Amino acid sequence: MSLLAESPVYSPGLHVLAAFRAAESRLTDLAGCRAFFAQQIAALGLVEVGAAWHAFPAQPDGLPGGFTAVVALTESHLSLHTWPEFGHATFDVFLSNYQRDNADRARQLYAATLAYFEGEALNYTEVRR
Amino acid sequence: MSLLAESPVYSPGLHVLAAFRAAESRLTDLAGCRAFFAQQIAALGLVEVGAAWHAFPAQPDGLPGGFTAVVALTESHLSLHTWPEFGHATFDVFLSNYQRDNADRARQLYAATLAYFEGEALNYTEVRR
Repeated sequence: MSLLAESPVYSPGLHVLAAFRAAESRLTDLAGCRAFFAQQIAALGLVEVGAAWHAFPAQPDGLPGGFTAVVALTESHLSLHTWPEFGHATFDVFLSNYQRDNADRARQLYAATLAYFEGEALNYTEVRR
Repeated sequence: MSLLAESPVYSPGLHVLAAFRAAESRLTDLAGCRAFFAQQIAALGLVEVGAAWHAFPAQPDGLPGGFTAVVALTESHLSLHTWPEFGHATFDVFLSNYQRDNADRARQLYAATLAYFEGEALNYTEVRR
């Protein structure tokens, strides 16, 4: 490991972590979110290289299930998890600056997501990594 | 949104974000990491519901490409991105406590990943969300 220890530490980019409240109708609409993310990824010039989308079943008491999305990008990833029974969602985007500075794109993607969900922001954290 | 505003804020669980250095041989071994994650997910009693794995092509100068993994879990997600040209990797695990407290499992998964990669820890952040 001696050669590695002598090289400078690489700093990939910005990771935004956030949570917001939103209405059940959005928090259970996997298809709508999927179309929204696809549109955003294209608009921001990001490149998707794979994704997993999963809808949770309805609860025993009849409450609708939420969904989970993880999207792999050449620039790193994007994720969203919803808990409609709590009116709650968490959002992450981590964009590396490998070919250009993507920090503002990460912030824009969060702002657009909050607007799409007509959400009420609960918390917002930026981690430089 | 008035009903939502009156309910308590849901706190899903712990998100661990970390970075480490490792040797090129591990940082380019997508198949090895995939098998390792599958074994860890089973050992920790987590449930995978989808994943995206992507290997980047070799660089023009012949340097090997890294890989990206995002794994959707019923408990939220796991991700890993490697930059072998910098001897660098970032790791995330976010485990919700929906059915049990998973905070220690998140920490265990990071410790096991660092050991698997024979990595040198660079930074480690816990975000309660």
